Amino acid sequence: MAGNTFGKNFTVITYGESHGAAIGGVIDGCPAGIDIDLEAIQYDLDRRKPGQSKIVTQRKESDTVQFYSGIFEGKTTGTPIGFQIVNENQKSKDYSHIKDTFRPSHADKVYEDKYGHRDYRGGGRSSARETASRVVAGAIAKQMLSQIKVTAFTSSVGDIFIDKPYQALDFSEIENNIVRCADPVTAKAMEERILQIRKEGDTIGGTITCVVQGVPAGLGEPAFDKLHADLGKAMLSINAVKGFEYGSGFCGAKMKGSEHNDLYNTDGSTKTNLSGGIQGGISNGMDIYFRVAFKPVATIMQSQETINSNGDIVEMQGKGRHDPCVVPRAVVIVEAMAALVLADHFLRARTSKI
Amino acid sequence: MAGNTFGKNFTVITYGESHGAAIGGVIDGCPAGIDIDLEAIQYDLDRRKPGQSKIVTQRKESDTVQFYSGIFEGKTTGTPIGFQIVNENQKSKDYSHIKDTFRPSHADKVYEDKYGHRDYRGGGRSSARETASRVVAGAIAKQMLSQIKVTAFTSSVGDIFIDKPYQALDFSEIENNIVRCADPVTAKAMEERILQIRKEGDTIGGTITCVVQGVPAGLGEPAFDKLHADLGKAMLSINAVKGFEYGSGFCGAKMKGSEHNDLYNTDGSTKTNLSGGIQGGISNGMDIYFRVAFKPVATIMQSQETINSNGDIVEMQGKGRHDPCVVPRAVVIVEAMAALVLADHFLRARTSKI
Amino acid sequence: MAGNTFGKNFTVITYGESHGAAIGGVIDGCPAGIDIDLEAIQYDLDRRKPGQSKIVTQRKESDTVQFYSGIFEGKTTGTPIGFQIVNENQKSKDYSHIKDTFRPSHADKVYEDKYGHRDYRGGGRSSARETASRVVAGAIAKQMLSQIKVTAFTSSVGDIFIDKPYQALDFSEIENNIVRCADPVTAKAMEERILQIRKEGDTIGGTITCVVQGVPAGLGEPAFDKLHADLGKAMLSINAVKGFEYGSGFCGAKMKGSEHNDLYNTDGSTKTNLSGGIQGGISNGMDIYFRVAFKPVATIMQSQETINSNGDIVEMQGKGRHDPCVVPRAVVIVEAMAALVLADHFLRARTSKI
Amino acid sequence: MAGNTFGKNFTVITYGESHGAAIGGVIDGCPAGIDIDLEAIQYDLDRRKPGQSKIVTQRKESDTVQFYSGIFEGKTTGTPIGFQIVNENQKSKDYSHIKDTFRPSHADKVYEDKYGHRDYRGGGRSSARETASRVVAGAIAKQMLSQIKVTAFTSSVGDIFIDKPYQALDFSEIENNIVRCADPVTAKAMEERILQIRKEGDTIGGTITCVVQGVPAGLGEPAFDKLHADLGKAMLSINAVKGFEYGSGFCGAKMKGSEHNDLYNTDGSTKTNLSGGIQGGISNGMDIYFRVAFKPVATIMQSQETINSNGDIVEMQGKGRHDPCVVPRAVVIVEAMAALVLADHFLRARTSKI
Repeated sequence: MAGNTFGKNFTVITYGESHGAAIGGVIDGCPAGIDIDLEAIQYDLDRRKPGQSKIVTQRKESDTVQFYSGIFEGKTTGTPIGFQIVNENQKSKDYSHIKDTFRPSHADKVYEDKYGHRDYRGGGRSSARETASRVVAGAIAKQMLSQIKVTAFTSSVGDIFIDKPYQALDFSEIENNIVRCADPVTAKAMEERILQIRKEGDTIGGTITCVVQGVPAGLGEPAFDKLHADLGKAMLSINAVKGFEYGSGFCGAKMKGSEHNDLYNTDGSTKTNLSGGIQGGISNGMDIYFRVAFKPVATIMQSQETINSNGDIVEMQGKGRHDPCVVPRAVVIVEAMAALVLADHFLRARTSKI
Repeated sequence: MAGNTFGKNFTVITYGESHGAAIGGVIDGCPAGIDIDLEAIQYDLDRRKPGQSKIVTQRKESDTVQFYSGIFEGKTTGTPIGFQIVNENQKSKDYSHIKDTFRPSHADKVYEDKYGHRDYRGGGRSSARETASRVVAGAIAKQMLSQIKVTAFTSSVGDIFIDKPYQALDFSEIENNIVRCADPVTAKAMEERILQIRKEGDTIGGTITCVVQGVPAGLGEPAFDKLHADLGKAMLSINAVKGFEYGSGFCGAKMKGSEHNDLYNTDGSTKTNLSGGIQGGISNGMDIYFRVAFKPVATIMQSQETINSNGDIVEMQGKGRHDPCVVPRAVVIVEAMAALVLADHFLRARTSKI
Repeated sequence: MAGNTFGKNFTVITYGESHGAAIGGVIDGCPAGIDIDLEAIQYDLDRRKPGQSKIVTQRKESDTVQFYSGIFEGKTTGTPIGFQIVNENQKSKDYSHIKDTFRPSHADKVYEDKYGHRDYRGGGRSSARETASRVVAGAIAKQMLSQIKVTAFTSSVGDIFIDKPYQALDFSEIENNIVRCADPVTAKAMEERILQIRKEGDTIGGTITCVVQGVPAGLGEPAFDKLHADLGKAMLSINAVKGFEYGSGFCGAKMKGSEHNDLYNTDGSTKTNLSGGIQGGISNGMDIYFRVAFKPVATIMQSQETINSNGDIVEMQGKGRHDPCVVPRAVVIVEAMAALVLADHFLRARTSKI
Repeated sequence: MAGNTFGKNFTVITYGESHGAAIGGVIDGCPAGIDIDLEAIQYDLDRRKPGQSKIVTQRKESDTVQFYSGIFEGKTTGTPIGFQIVNENQKSKDYSHIKDTFRPSHADKVYEDKYGHRDYRGGGRSSARETASRVVAGAIAKQMLSQIKVTAFTSSVGDIFIDKPYQALDFSEIENNIVRCADPVTAKAMEERILQIRKEGDTIGGTITCVVQGVPAGLGEPAFDKLHADLGKAMLSINAVKGFEYGSGFCGAKMKGSEHNDLYNTDGSTKTNLSGGIQGGISNGMDIYFRVAFKPVATIMQSQETINSNGDIVEMQGKGRHDPCVVPRAVVIVEAMAALVLADHFLRARTSKI
C-alpha cells in the first residue's frame, strides 16, 4: 500500500532515488507474444532525458535502460519484465547543506514528517527522476497497444498557448521543435519565453495536451475505475501536476446541456466530441483528449528564505542544473502514463463478457 | 478488477442499479471502536436525495439507509459494514422505448458495446443513483476522521461564480441556501439561473470547491498514490465530472516559480498556500483545497435526434424528472469522496515508520 | 486490507455476523451474459443449511438468498451482484453470559485482543455462518464455469475413511447419504460414528476430498499465485480447516522422483497424475484433486473450564444446537471456494497472451 | 494480476528467469527506520545457494545481492527497496534439445500452453531460482520483526522423520548439519539417505517444520485473509510443495473436540496448543507451527520417456547438476515466506482499532 505500483492488470512498480545507484522497475501482467522494439523504448527515454536541448536542465545522464527478464528472443514471455537505469550523475558530493534545510515548495519537509529518515540527496524518491522508469513501462505499453496512437504536446507555457483545436494541428511538427509544441509559430514564442525565464533565474509553468486515437469502444469500468478517472490519477501522479481536464473540461462547467450533448451519426460516432471520447467512464471509440497543468519548477536560481529542521530562518541560494520549464520533457511522461492506463484497461476489458 | 471498489485500506464497494430492488455497499477496513452517529449519516443522505428543493429533480426517494453488520452497540467492530438503500421509485413501467434507443451523451451505447447485455432502466449502473452509497461510506469516513473537517460548496453555476478566495467565505452559509453556495449573494443569482434554465427545458454545468482542514502532515504516498492523485481520481469518478484542479491548479501553469513557491514560517506552516496543502503528494498540514468541474446534465426536456440500436435516426423527447443542475446535490458527494480518500490515507500512513 | 474480499478478477466480499440482521455479499467482476439458474444457487445453500438432517445442528434457518443487482432478465450484466440472506434465528436472547467469557478454541479472545470491541453474539464475524455467502458466490462461479465440474465429498470422519482412489468412486452416491460420502458403505459407518459422538456430547473431525474435472490447461500464474496456492488459501480460509494437500500431498514427500514423475502420453495427457492436475502452479488439463482437513467443532456439550475477561477460571457448560461434525455441511463450502478460485483464474488467464 | 507480487501492505514483487541476466525484486511497504544488517541477508542467501554442501546441487552461484534504493545510511527510508542478484551460471550453451521437449512433471508444457512463447532455458520463470529473491525479501521482513523468531528445519526425508515434538528439539543444532535437521541423530540418517538416493540417480521428497515464536496476539484478519490461510498460500507457492498443515493438522481431523480444545490458563495462554497459535485466523500469542510437504525433484539422472512439441515420444536422459532432495536448501525459503506473511499482517494489524 506504499503507492509505488500503478495499474491493476498491466502493472508497473518503480524504485529508486535521484542519487542512489540506480532506478528501475518491474512491469507485470504484460501478455506474452508482443514484439519488443528496444530502440523505440530508448527513443522515448531520450525525449525525457536531461541535456537534450538548451531549454532543459544541462545535467548529463545517458539514461540507458537495461532489461533483465520477461523478454526472450525479441518477444515478451508473459513473465515480469525487470529493468534498470543506472544513475550516472550521482556524484559523491557533499549534501550536508540540504540535509537539514527544507526547500520551499519541495517535498523535503513532508518526507521528514512522514518517514523520520529520508534520502535527502537531490530530492531522493520525490525527484522527478523516478519518471524515467515510467517512460520505459509506458513505451512497452505503447507497443502492446499497436492500434492505439497516443500523442502529447506542449499546449501552453506561461500565458502563451496554442489557440487552435487539436484537430487543426499537425502532430508531425511536435518533434521538430525543442518545446514539443504542435504549432511551429507558438513553439518559437514558447522557446523564447523559456530562455528569458531562465535568464531571470526563474521558472515557468505550462500545460500539455494529449490526444489518444484508435481506442476501441468499451475500455473503462463503471463506478470508480472510470477510464478518465484513471487517466486523471495517472496525470496527477506526475511531479508538478496541479490539474487535469478531459473533453470539455472546466469549460464544460459553463455550458448548457443543449450545447454540450454530442449527437450521434448513424454509424454510432458522434457529430461533436465534447465528451472527450468517454461516456460514463467507458470509451466510445471517438478520440480521447485531455489537458494537464504543470506548476513552475520550485527550484529557482534566486535567493529565497526558508527554514531548517530547527525551525530557524535560513537563506537559500538556488544552484545546480534545473529545468526552467518542465513541460518539454514531460510530454513523453504524459504519453507514458496514458499508455499505461490504456494498456491496463485494454486487458481488463477482456473479461467484460463471458 | 471491475472497478466497483474504492480505496486500499479503508475500502467501499457499491452495488445496485437505478431501478433494481436496492442499492448498497460494503465498507471494509474501518477500524473498531468508532462511535457511529446514524443521524449524521442520514443527514448527508438527505443533502443528496431527490426532491429536497425546487431546483433539483422532483423524484421522490426517502433514501433511508439500513445497516446490517459491522456496528454493534453504537460502535464499529472492525468487521465489514454492509448497508442498503431500497429503491422506492422503481415503478414497473414500460422502458421498452429506451431499451433500444441510445440517449445522447449518456452511457447507454457504451454499456451495450462493452457488455452486450445491460439493465437499460433509468441508466442502470451508470445512473448517479449509485452515489448514494458513496455518501453513506463517506459519512462513516468523516466520523472516523474526527479531527478533519471536509467542506464542499457550489462555487459556480454556468458563468456565475464566487469571486472571493475561500478564506473570505463563511461556510456556515452553505446550508442556508438551496444551491449550497458559500456566498449568499452569489447563491441567489445561481438559484435564479437554475430556475430559468429549467424553464427552458435545459440544464447547466457548474463547479464545486472543497476545502479540507485539520489534515495532519504525512498523509499520501510517493509516486503513484499521491494524495492529490487519489483525490483527483475520486472526484473524476463522480458522474458528470470533467475536470479537477487543486491548489493553484490551471492558474499555476501560468505562474513563475518565484511567484508560486510557498515560503515557510518558522513553525513549519507556509505564508502562502498555492501548493494546496500537499507537497510531493504528501499533506503538509495546511488546508487542502480543490475544485471540481461538472458538465451539464445530459437529459434535457427538449427534443433531440439520436439513434437506436439499428443505427436509425429517431426523435427523442426528454421526459421524467431530472436535475437542471447537478451541482447542489453533488456537494455532499464531493465531500464523501474526499473523506474516503483521507480515511484511506489516514490508515495507510500508520505504517510509514516502524 | 481487512481480509473480507476473495479473488482478484472474479471477486466476492462478504459481510455479516452470526446474529446480526443479515449476512450477504457482493460479487464483482462476473462477466456479462451468463444465464443464472437461481434454483441451483438455492440448492447449494440448502446443502449447507442447518437442520437438513439428523447429524447436523438442529437450528432452523431457511437461508433464502435475495439478489439486488447485476442480474437482469435472467442474465448477468457485468455489474456487481449484491445479495443477502436474512438471519432468522437471531433471537433477542440474553448473551451476557458469553459476553465476558472466552470459549476454549474459539476466536472470542483473539477478537477481543485485536479489536477491543466485538459482537459477541454467537461468535459474531468468526461464526461459520459467514460461509453461506461464499456458497452463493461459489454457485454463481460454477455457472460461469459451465465446462468445469467441481465435486467434493466427505472422505473421512475421525478414523473412518474411504480406502479407494477417487476414480473408483461413484460421485452420484454423494447426495444419497446425509454424510455426503462418495462410498455408501463407508457413509453408513460415518453416520453411526457421528450419531454416537453426538450422544457423548462430543464432536469429531474429518476430511473432505475435492475433484475438479474439465479444467482447461493454462489456469494459474507463476510465482505466488500458483493455482494450488490459491486453492490452498481458499480452503484454509474455511472455518475449522487445519490442512490442505493436493495431488500426492504429504505422501509425495515420502516418494522418489522416479516413482512420482507423471510420464506423458502422446496427446499431452499423463499416464499417472500424482501432480494433481497442476504443474508449476498452472493447470495441465488433468483432474485437479485435493484434500482438506477439518478439526472437531470446538463447542461441545460437556462441561469445560475456561476464563473470563478478568482472567478468572469459570465453568462453562456447552449448550445450544451445534454440529457434532462439520464435514457434511462443509462439502458444498469446499466446492464453492474451489469454484471461486477457478473462476478467478479463468478470467485472469484471458490476458496471458496478446 | 500476473501473480508475481506477494503481500498487501508489506509486499515483494520478483522478476527473473533461471538463465536470464539477473533475478531480483522490489520490496514495497517496508516502514522507514529499520536498521538493516546486510550480512544477515547474505547469510540467508548462503543457506539457500547451490554448492554449499555435498548433498545439494553442485552448480556454482555466489548469489550476491545488491541493493539499489530504499536503504540510506544503514536504515530503511520507507521507499521501495530494489535489489538484484546476477545470474553467474547462465552459460551460453545450447538449449535446443530442451526447447521442444517437455520434461515430465516440469512446467515446460503448461508454460507453452499458457503463453505460446517461453524462455525454455533451465526452466525459465518456473525454476526455483526465483526463490532467491524471496529469501532477500524475507530476510528484511525478519529484521522488521525483531521480536518474532522464525525457525524452520527439516523434519523428514523420505520415510525418515523426527519422532519428537518440536518442544523437545534444540534449534541450535539445525545449522550444525547439512540436512538442517533439528535432531542430530536423525540428521545423520537423512544425510545418508540423500547420498544414497543421489547415487541411484534418483531424488527424494521430504517435509519442513516451521515454528514462529514471539508473535503478538491479534495478527491475521477474519474471513479470507486468516493468518494460517496466508501462511498456507505462501508455502504452497514454493516450488515442489504439495501440502501444508498447521497446529494439529491432518491428525486433528481424527480427533474429538474434547481432546482437541486448548484450555486456558489464567494469563490467557493455553495449556495445550493444538490450535497452532491461531484462533479464527488470528494469532493468540502462542507458538505458531506448521509443516510443509515437498515432492521429490522431478529432474532425475535416469532415462525417462517423454514427448516433444510434436507429440512424439522421445527418450530423455537427465543431466546437469540438480538437488537429490530439495528440503535442506528450502528451509530458509520456508522461513522467508513465513516472515513475509507475518510482516504483512504485522502492518495490517496496525489499523484494526481507531
